[in-house]
Amino acid sequence: MHRLDKHRLNEYAKETMDFLRNENIPLFRKTFLKLHSMDQATIFVALDLKERAKLYHNISAEEFSNIFQELDYKVQRMILQELHETYAADMFNEMNTDDAASFLVALPEKMQRGLLQKMNDTEASEIQELMGYPEETAGSIMTKDYVQIRAASTAREVLAYLQTEKPDAETIYYLYVVNEHNKLTGILSLRELITNNPSERVENLMRTQLITIQDDDDQEDVARIIQHYDLLALPVLTDAGALVGIVTVDDVMDVVEDETTEDIGELSAVRGATDVNLSAFASARKRAPWLILLMFLGLLTGGVIDQFEETLEAVVILAVFIPMIMDSAGNIGTQSLAVVVRGIAVGTFQRESIRQLLKRQLGTGLMVGLMCGAVIFVVVPLIPFFDGSWMLGAIVGISIFLSLSIACVVGAIMPLIINKLKLDPALASGPFVTTIGDVVGLFIYFSIATSLLQYL
Amino acid sequence: MHRLDKHRLNEYAKETMDFLRNENIPLFRKTFLKLHSMDQATIFVALDLKERAKLYHNISAEEFSNIFQELDYKVQRMILQELHETYAADMFNEMNTDDAASFLVALPEKMQRGLLQKMNDTEASEIQELMGYPEETAGSIMTKDYVQIRAASTAREVLAYLQTEKPDAETIYYLYVVNEHNKLTGILSLRELITNNPSERVENLMRTQLITIQDDDDQEDVARIIQHYDLLALPVLTDAGALVGIVTVDDVMDVVEDETTEDIGELSAVRGATDVNLSAFASARKRAPWLILLMFLGLLTGGVIDQFEETLEAVVILAVFIPMIMDSAGNIGTQSLAVVVRGIAVGTFQRESIRQLLKRQLGTGLMVGLMCGAVIFVVVPLIPFFDGSWMLGAIVGISIFLSLSIACVVGAIMPLIINKLKLDPALASGPFVTTIGDVVGLFIYFSIATSLLQYL
Repeated sequence: MHRLDKHRLNEYAKETMDFLRNENIPLFRKTFLKLHSMDQATIFVALDLKERAKLYHNISAEEFSNIFQELDYKVQRMILQELHETYAADMFNEMNTDDAASFLVALPEKMQRGLLQKMNDTEASEIQELMGYPEETAGSIMTKDYVQIRAASTAREVLAYLQTEKPDAETIYYLYVVNEHNKLTGILSLRELITNNPSERVENLMRTQLITIQDDDDQEDVARIIQHYDLLALPVLTDAGALVGIVTVDDVMDVVEDETTEDIGELSAVRGATDVNLSAFASARKRAPWLILLMFLGLLTGGVIDQFEETLEAVVILAVFIPMIMDSAGNIGTQSLAVVVRGIAVGTFQRESIRQLLKRQLGTGLMVGLMCGAVIFVVVPLIPFFDGSWMLGAIVGISIFLSLSIACVVGAIMPLIINKLKLDPALASGPFVTTIGDVVGLFIYFSIATSLLQYL
Repeated sequence: MHRLDKHRLNEYAKETMDFLRNENIPLFRKTFLKLHSMDQATIFVALDLKERAKLYHNISAEEFSNIFQELDYKVQRMILQELHETYAADMFNEMNTDDAASFLVALPEKMQRGLLQKMNDTEASEIQELMGYPEETAGSIMTKDYVQIRAASTAREVLAYLQTEKPDAETIYYLYVVNEHNKLTGILSLRELITNNPSERVENLMRTQLITIQDDDDQEDVARIIQHYDLLALPVLTDAGALVGIVTVDDVMDVVEDETTEDIGELSAVRGATDVNLSAFASARKRAPWLILLMFLGLLTGGVIDQFEETLEAVVILAVFIPMIMDSAGNIGTQSLAVVVRGIAVGTFQRESIRQLLKRQLGTGLMVGLMCGAVIFVVVPLIPFFDGSWMLGAIVGISIFLSLSIACVVGAIMPLIINKLKLDPALASGPFVTTIGDVVGLFIYFSIATSLLQYL
């Protein structure tokens, strides 16, 4: 029984929907609800308006909430129009609070208020609490659906509570122990709960060396901690230590993916257009402004060449090395940029060591520059075309050495400056670093060439 | 009680190690073993040789196995030298099979055999089984530490089994139901187990619409499925449907990170050197070969300019546009590359739609090219320096239009060709795409300029 690949899911979907069309509701419900909610969602989005109406009619708001929270925001918006108000309110009541909040927060305020009023009070106020957190904080991605227990209870009592109450939490695999002030005092895993003596009190079983995060911390920190400690969930505390929510590992994987897409956007100036399925026009509209801006930067780089027009007129062959100088400086700069951006993302880079980092990058730049410069110095006079001019080799070799050393540091320093000054990270993107490298490289090259013109 | 940040962990570590130094073993064990194994590892690596020896003496092989599996391979290798052979063998017996296998597989064969012989037979044969799988397959990252149960058991029986046997599995939150042929017939979550009637049989509670993967599937597929369905673990089956292991979500996060690092390496030609903490020399050694290779590619690009030396000699000002032409073609190519590489990684890109993808990228390229070309055509004659030469604007504008259209498709096509022909993915890296863009762009530019030379 292999996983439901696309083909098998299609067949299964056909069968399931035939039951629905033929009004064989019990069989429809049996086959459909057996599926993972993600597969239910895949089937659901393929239905037409009439079929969808039939589905809402035969699936409870609670059952539909599982499907709804797997959909993309745009689809959710569309679907919301089709739902009866009470059905929609019931559905939001049953949704995970984090999924409900992240949908509602993006709605126009009037719709938001209308829906929240129809929901039950506890759920509505929990969702409003989440909606109050700034974007990309731990608070904004946490859920209120967790199980909290008391330190004085026995393992047996907690297990009985889980069995009878069947709490609708996102995870029951971690149980959070809070005192009367809602302060988190311990965490008990379900595993420890069931593998220990049932008469033991929670306080003797729970872990008290807690790994937690604060509600206003960055979501990247949440991802880093969960990954570092291999956790299934991380409790979120207020400044005062009160438990206000948890972030589960599946939400963190989405954060990691978003942040990676951001990083790749930075390296390639494709921010906001990384979706491979974007239409040609939508993609062009998002990519063109960047390219036009960068084109003008390229024109400015050309201005450096213009400054040295006389030199170039005297020895046109100098132009042959323009691409090499530009590419080499750009490449080493982008390498440094990638290393630092990745280091920040993965969290291996400690802020205290900025000076060390730059020293290391300068060291790398000097070594690589020396190596590349030496290679060029030797190779250029050997190419017949250049008439064995070792002076040309020296000019190009020294230029490569200097521009690589500088570009290597520039690439590393840009994302740090951006981070420090809280500027738009796009300024640390590959093309900008490349442009700086180009300008520096060409300027050095033509300066040296001009001053040595008489020997060429 | 905030999470143990670096400062607090340092203080706590000092206290703990003082207990060890003063031979207050009960207190040392109590404070040290309370910590998360990751924090134990952080403390452990800061110890000196003598302190480490003391620690091995007072911590069982089982307790130390938790620390050992959190360490990097290089540190593990060093530490292994310090351990008594039986202690080491005991430790490997207690480690997660996937962690043990991924360490042992990298050892010299003689050491491997020595250790496996000293281990107990079941563990050793399980580890050997994992070591037999090719790298980057589901089999190579799965663990054998999972709980399997029978369909005919009652929930009460399974719970009693977990309580008394305390199985040493990586997760007990999913229980795998197998028949006498070891075929996976269902999955029961611990949540469903404890929230249902204890007298109910497993077969009536278990999920039978299974999401699984095959042992020789790629690890990226594992990551994609776990992420798509928000799973905590994914069962791995043989071709015949027999359960051979599971992959847990924490291992998948490592896979995602590795694959991302690979992608970023591809975009920036920094493969194998993305570690921000690499020494200057180590980094230079890894980065230099790429840069030297790319430098020579830059020299080849210069060859294009050389072909048109006479044109350039006649109108030196043409050189001013070289950077812009090169940058623009390179930038749009890298954008396309990033979109496709990301699309492949995230799995949003379906292979059937290659033709559509290329059509879309060509569409984007034409639109962006037209826009950029038009802007340049209008702007260049307005810059006083160019004496209002609309012919120059036309030459540069048309060149931009054509080279952007072509480079946009080239950037998208490169990773696809590489994937298809199973070539080294490095050939699809940013700098290579940029070089192709450079050559195409400069060739078009100088060809047009040469044919229209008389009008300049």
